[in-house]
Amino acid sequence: MPYIQIDMLEGRSAEQIKKVVKDITEVMVNDANASADAVNIVVRESRKDHIAVGGVLKSEM
Amino acid sequence: MPYIQIDMLEGRSAEQIKKVVKDITEVMVNDANASADAVNIVVRESRKDHIAVGGVLKSEM
Amino acid sequence: MPYIQIDMLEGRSAEQIKKVVKDITEVMVNDANASADAVNIVVRESRKDHIAVGGVLKSEM
Amino acid sequence: MPYIQIDMLEGRSAEQIKKVVKDITEVMVNDANASADAVNIVVRESRKDHIAVGGVLKSEM
Amino acid sequence: MPYIQIDMLEGRSAEQIKKVVKDITEVMVNDANASADAVNIVVRESRKDHIAVGGVLKSEM
Amino acid sequence: MPYIQIDMLEGRSAEQIKKVVKDITEVMVNDANASADAVNIVVRESRKDHIAVGGVLKSEM
Repeated sequence: MPYIQIDMLEGRSAEQIKKVVKDITEVMVNDANASADAVNIVVRESRKDHIAVGGVLKSEM
Repeated sequence: MPYIQIDMLEGRSAEQIKKVVKDITEVMVNDANASADAVNIVVRESRKDHIAVGGVLKSEM
Repeated sequence: MPYIQIDMLEGRSAEQIKKVVKDITEVMVNDANASADAVNIVVRESRKDHIAVGGVLKSEM
Repeated sequence: MPYIQIDMLEGRSAEQIKKVVKDITEVMVNDANASADAVNIVVRESRKDHIAVGGVLKSEM
Repeated sequence: MPYIQIDMLEGRSAEQIKKVVKDITEVMVNDANASADAVNIVVRESRKDHIAVGGVLKSEM
Repeated sequence: MPYIQIDMLEGRSAEQIKKVVKDITEVMVNDANASADAVNIVVRESRKDHIAVGGVLKSEM
């Protein structure tokens, strides 16, 4: 712990995901006193036709 | 918020998923006073060999 | 399956939650051909100071 | 219920996953008095470049 | 990883939960070649009026 | 979206949680091109006797 699950729209580059996990881990260390090696992150990318806001799929927006 | 995660067996049509997210959002608005544009839904479809009930994978049923 | 997780702000009444799970189950039966007794729902209520949108906690809004 | 979500690195065999869900269901029955047919499990496999520990993606280790 | 989330009805004893996490970790080591210290488990207990099967809350059954 | 779930040990201060959600949102904006107001975060704090690493509850460590 902490365990962080990131659900987001597919399409980010490998470089972006690499930076996201590095920087979020830093936030948990700096702001919440977590030890870095205890921070587990899973990134789940979803298709536009599997994510909805306001009852409308992203693929319909 | 509310944030709703739907894990289900793969295989529904795009039309079914479109209707599910629309109707679930309506339920949250009508039954729980949520504002529609605050309702976030992610749909995750899983393969039969990744879902189990009673210790048996759906692919084994 | 389907398994549905609802994360929302605390404060809904027992009656509202009762209606939400009933109506969401109906949506899954009508729109996604699920069988009612396979629909599992967990409702998790969170405090305002544990939910954030746009980087700001609901308790700060 | 109980509902169990297993997020793990991709690459396990079908046989391994079959055994995991069977044995975890047995644990819930033996240790937590769950009835087997109430135990729902979803297995989600993630790519190495979507899982991080200590701020570093598994694909970078 | 693996990261395991267990959502279940409240009411298990501390001893039961202690045994569940120990035995589930053993399953992941024996069946899925995980290393024990990489297995992270969170147990979330829910009230009967926050869990539903078949559209009916456990508190209504 | 993105939707971020943070499961962590209970005990952080309100100030720490406030900073975590602010800074994580900034990471998603800067590193993943998310728009701030689309970033939803829920923080779930768990008791030591509900979190395990390596098969041992934090409360047993």
